[in-house]
Amino acid sequence: MFLAPTLTVSLPAIVANWQTLRARFVGEECAAVVKANAYGLGAVEVSTALEKAGCHTFFVATIEEGIELREALPDVRILVFHGVQAGEEFAFAAHRLIPVLNSLAQLERWKPIAAEHVHAVSALHIDTAMARMGLEVEEFTALLARDPAVLEATRVGLILSHFACAPEADHALNTEQLKRFNTARALAPSIPASLCNSGGIYLSREYHFDLARPGCSLYGIAPQAPTVNNTVRSASEPLAAGVSEAKGTMSPSNPMQQVATWHAPILATRTLEREQTVGYGATQTLPKGTRIATVASGYADGYLRHLSGHAVGYIGEHQVKLVGRVTMDMLCFDVSHVPESLCHDGAMLTLLGDADGIRVDDVAAAAQTIGYEVLTRIGRRVKRVYT
Amino acid sequence: MFLAPTLTVSLPAIVANWQTLRARFVGEECAAVVKANAYGLGAVEVSTALEKAGCHTFFVATIEEGIELREALPDVRILVFHGVQAGEEFAFAAHRLIPVLNSLAQLERWKPIAAEHVHAVSALHIDTAMARMGLEVEEFTALLARDPAVLEATRVGLILSHFACAPEADHALNTEQLKRFNTARALAPSIPASLCNSGGIYLSREYHFDLARPGCSLYGIAPQAPTVNNTVRSASEPLAAGVSEAKGTMSPSNPMQQVATWHAPILATRTLEREQTVGYGATQTLPKGTRIATVASGYADGYLRHLSGHAVGYIGEHQVKLVGRVTMDMLCFDVSHVPESLCHDGAMLTLLGDADGIRVDDVAAAAQTIGYEVLTRIGRRVKRVYT
Repeated sequence: MFLAPTLTVSLPAIVANWQTLRARFVGEECAAVVKANAYGLGAVEVSTALEKAGCHTFFVATIEEGIELREALPDVRILVFHGVQAGEEFAFAAHRLIPVLNSLAQLERWKPIAAEHVHAVSALHIDTAMARMGLEVEEFTALLARDPAVLEATRVGLILSHFACAPEADHALNTEQLKRFNTARALAPSIPASLCNSGGIYLSREYHFDLARPGCSLYGIAPQAPTVNNTVRSASEPLAAGVSEAKGTMSPSNPMQQVATWHAPILATRTLEREQTVGYGATQTLPKGTRIATVASGYADGYLRHLSGHAVGYIGEHQVKLVGRVTMDMLCFDVSHVPESLCHDGAMLTLLGDADGIRVDDVAAAAQTIGYEVLTRIGRRVKRVYT
Repeated sequence: MFLAPTLTVSLPAIVANWQTLRARFVGEECAAVVKANAYGLGAVEVSTALEKAGCHTFFVATIEEGIELREALPDVRILVFHGVQAGEEFAFAAHRLIPVLNSLAQLERWKPIAAEHVHAVSALHIDTAMARMGLEVEEFTALLARDPAVLEATRVGLILSHFACAPEADHALNTEQLKRFNTARALAPSIPASLCNSGGIYLSREYHFDLARPGCSLYGIAPQAPTVNNTVRSASEPLAAGVSEAKGTMSPSNPMQQVATWHAPILATRTLEREQTVGYGATQTLPKGTRIATVASGYADGYLRHLSGHAVGYIGEHQVKLVGRVTMDMLCFDVSHVPESLCHDGAMLTLLGDADGIRVDDVAAAAQTIGYEVLTRIGRRVKRVYT
């Protein structure tokens, strides 16, 4: 094994988060969303651990993700958010994948498969605000009027919709979506329903229905937008502020365990022999005597370039600041105040990780994005290690 | 094969870009930088095409990238920017990889290998402005004073340094770096030297030296920062502006051929039955009757979430605007003005590509980043296709 950055994924933390979400959910079943390779953390490993903990239903985005998961887990339910495309019908049946039917065309596409295979069930997506995929309520109403048997003919076993603003508990759109979803449900009251993502589970019980499908919070992302002094926290605050909050008032608002820790090895250290600018674009000037550690990770590994100027790492207990811009394969940190004995070549610097106080939501805020993007973009040069 | 997004990589365009760069470079040899999996486009495929075109020297970032490339190309020179770490020495020798020695520690680490293996050569990195890796000029001077045989003992065959601001031809740091590099070179004048990246090749001849090592421009990124009315273009302009410039005055300033085209299949289309907000956060309101096409790509595929609100695609000749936020696995475009016959399920929408006028630098500008990050982050669900 060569020295390389590592992403240590705590499967027990994911299981604990799933149990936390399940305990809060008042409906029948808590599923798990493992699309995009379980948000970059490894769909097979994560799903295998969750199945052992009692999770039976998994959601992926694409048919290829579904087939990969089916090979690892022969006995679970696997739903595919993108639904069924022309030419994919038989592969869905052969791998016992459940398409989330998102349009009239997808419903029609599934009818012959449902007629032919008794195990070929589907889910139906009702759009209540996203305008992305799914039937609008009006469209669903009109469909049932002209084709009353369509739900049996496509063997719909679940009706689902998708929140647009669930992390903001007081957003007016939540109640509007609930109303629209209930209108749709009233047209097919015997079919189980699913509305809640992670955020939805932290809304009141009327939102819960039968099946929850958390994703982000399994991986440590807060289910609700963090609030500071009762205002939703801006995504443009620098990470340093986020980190100090995380150790103070902010962290308790996220009930999830941190799941992923990213370590990057030190490639070299040096002490500046003169005051000088550092990095691409010469954006920052550092004084003579500054000691810099360069580590093996960069934006090609998913350390977002927007973190330039806004990020910190840890060496042991010592917080260190990123200096200069994020580059493709390397990051530089000011380690002037860290004991030299901790800064040798090959020593690991923490870029992300709970034990050291860098939560994924804080990294996201520093890069003006969301934790989902931080996790899903961690690249293949970062070796996954599972605990 | 299932319907999936594709990244079509033109190997002839990469070869043509390399030839353009080589023709402009006045030194002996033009190498190629293929680190980070050739900026996400496929290191083995790209390097194999370049070798056939006459390229003999390749640069990667890590030893693992070097080993992967060595397996494909037994006869080329492969240099590893990260240098040699403790425990990697014998793997470097076994795979005939050339470490870029970045510190006194790395020099010491290489001495026993150079002593033992006659083919074990190295490169030496002199830092002239980045403060990231490499010996400072003062450090190099002191080293030669106390260990005059060190370059022979480590068999240094190339001295290199790295520009901080080469895309800005008039940046004062360029001349300062040149001066420092010449100071270092004067201490070892018989050893070939390398300073130029893509941008450097477009600086004057005094910067060129013996070996150039272009990276970004092989993949279609402009070697020099684009200028509009003689001012460097801001990275915060929206893509729509960038695209119209690309068809007007800006594009001619980039002599490189576009290399990569990203197509995403339409999963479903729909017409809004009411005026409504769209997407996460309900950030945008669209009128009744708007037709939306949802395609299979998202930030998990490297379509940067910072493009939300700033991006366009193409369906054939029709430019379409991204609506709502970029989501993990899907993007929505307003296709109200596109003929329905072009918007069927499975039809491909262009997210990136020269033929349709979306250059990688324009996408980068819209996301307030650089083309390097756009390319290196395109994910594994996007199937690479080579022409």
